[in-house]
Amino acid sequence: MNSSESAAPRPQHVGVIGLGAMGGGMARSLRRAGHTVHVVDVRADVARAFAAEGGFACESPAALAQQCDVIVSVVINAAQTETVLFGENGCAAAMRPGSVFVMCSTVDPRWSAAMEARLAELGILYLDAPISGGAAKAQAGQITMMTAGRPEAYQTCGPLLDAMAAKVYRLGERAGAGSKVKVINQLLAGVHIAAAAEAMALGLREGVDPDALYEVITHSAGNSWMFENRMSHVLAGDYTPLSAVDIFVKDLGLVLDLARSSKFPLPLSSTAHQMFMQASSAGFAKEDDSAVIKIFPGIALPAAKPHADDQQTDPQGKAK
Amino acid sequence: MNSSESAAPRPQHVGVIGLGAMGGGMARSLRRAGHTVHVVDVRADVARAFAAEGGFACESPAALAQQCDVIVSVVINAAQTETVLFGENGCAAAMRPGSVFVMCSTVDPRWSAAMEARLAELGILYLDAPISGGAAKAQAGQITMMTAGRPEAYQTCGPLLDAMAAKVYRLGERAGAGSKVKVINQLLAGVHIAAAAEAMALGLREGVDPDALYEVITHSAGNSWMFENRMSHVLAGDYTPLSAVDIFVKDLGLVLDLARSSKFPLPLSSTAHQMFMQASSAGFAKEDDSAVIKIFPGIALPAAKPHADDQQTDPQGKAK
Repeated sequence: MNSSESAAPRPQHVGVIGLGAMGGGMARSLRRAGHTVHVVDVRADVARAFAAEGGFACESPAALAQQCDVIVSVVINAAQTETVLFGENGCAAAMRPGSVFVMCSTVDPRWSAAMEARLAELGILYLDAPISGGAAKAQAGQITMMTAGRPEAYQTCGPLLDAMAAKVYRLGERAGAGSKVKVINQLLAGVHIAAAAEAMALGLREGVDPDALYEVITHSAGNSWMFENRMSHVLAGDYTPLSAVDIFVKDLGLVLDLARSSKFPLPLSSTAHQMFMQASSAGFAKEDDSAVIKIFPGIALPAAKPHADDQQTDPQGKAK
Repeated sequence: MNSSESAAPRPQHVGVIGLGAMGGGMARSLRRAGHTVHVVDVRADVARAFAAEGGFACESPAALAQQCDVIVSVVINAAQTETVLFGENGCAAAMRPGSVFVMCSTVDPRWSAAMEARLAELGILYLDAPISGGAAKAQAGQITMMTAGRPEAYQTCGPLLDAMAAKVYRLGERAGAGSKVKVINQLLAGVHIAAAAEAMALGLREGVDPDALYEVITHSAGNSWMFENRMSHVLAGDYTPLSAVDIFVKDLGLVLDLARSSKFPLPLSSTAHQMFMQASSAGFAKEDDSAVIKIFPGIALPAAKPHADDQQTDPQGKAK
């Protein structure tokens, strides 16, 4: 899906709002592709660090909007996106007609469709563009984008999408179609993390060696992307949050809200949602989402392995 | 895990009981590796067809036991395995001391441990050896085996396992350890099939193009081995059973029995089990397990695509 119209796309001024694990990598991928990148983050030091690499830090979304024709929003949810657009010093009022707002958060598809309509009244184009792939792929410009929007929006921001993503899925001309697919991806991701935890917990209960179980499952038909990825955290006893338990309380909540709007039953999603809420209430809200395994009683989880930094095995310090 | 002791293992007389999708392929892989293969199947014509290829059809498990030092049992469950061993003309009474019974069914691990003890009283060695991989891998000698048993058992049947499997996991010296891992694999497989159905059903309810959804999910973090494999059946509208709904009624039942024996909670497995039982009671028991999607109301599933054989697009018949 790379733009085939020009071998070297024209450098653009692009804004990125939210320099978290995903947004930071996406901003760097845009800069590496030759674009001029303006950024805003609530943590001023993070924005300044990006400026020191050759980007430009802005005071507010409004200030950023005066520099750019495309703004990529990579904040945590719909509420933060509304603040970015319409809060104090929000960007909506400052964006030029014909410029594009690229919405990368995981949100209710109906909210995304409404936002497209609201911005259209201001002459601003909108791209429904949730993302997937994790921090490493964001850094490498290799994320997946699940997008929907009007052809004019793609025309302006297409080369920028290609700079950030390995795959840009175009799922329709109306906002919401991308968010629907993203919400369904989160349904599977959330159920698979909870199922991986349930399977590993049963193995521990039954005295199965967890490393052997991991080795067999990752080579068998019971494997999932999430089992392979998240159970390595459990084996290492490392619950440092790459994505936190509360993210799936939110995302499976979005899944269930969407289905409830048409009275559609989702037995597994609702069960998995209860498991993540149980983990959250039990005190693991901010831990890695694999900590959902801590809701299972009567098992001993693998202990944290000592970090290399904690060891003194190499007096010359080469081990680092 | 291939035997490194001899470049060309000594040809053996081996018996295979049960020439279904898995057993048939495994028997052929053994013959291809140079072994003399004796078979029994309740369908006499299937056994005769194998004999016509160069194997030997036997009248009963007892008759087969007189020809072989190793018997590989690939029947559907524990009850059939007991019949093969101890039923009318069963093999147990006819097996020579020191010969090995390789148990490849998916069973309760406690039953498998008890069977090892029962056969030991007769001087017969036992290998707990559930399998994974599907018919194509069975034909190619590329299945996965999750095994446990005494070293003497491996010594006799090791080269035969290598002829059937790409991976032979050795999970302990006591029968039951292989079956535990297999049961946990089935926990994940069953939950993943039901979750895949739930996700695809929500997509259809929301008007998402199912082919586009499949394309995105199989390239995203929501993917699982089962989503990729089984949802292709749903997209094709083809519920010809490769593995039937009732297999997961049985296998998730084994999962729940195992956990119940130590009062261990499995929220997702029990929910998925209910979904497969709902599908079974609704009349889809013998359809492909992906037919669990038919329990979701208010959606239109993709219609069956016409088979190539039904089409008359190529008058010269080359399309076949």
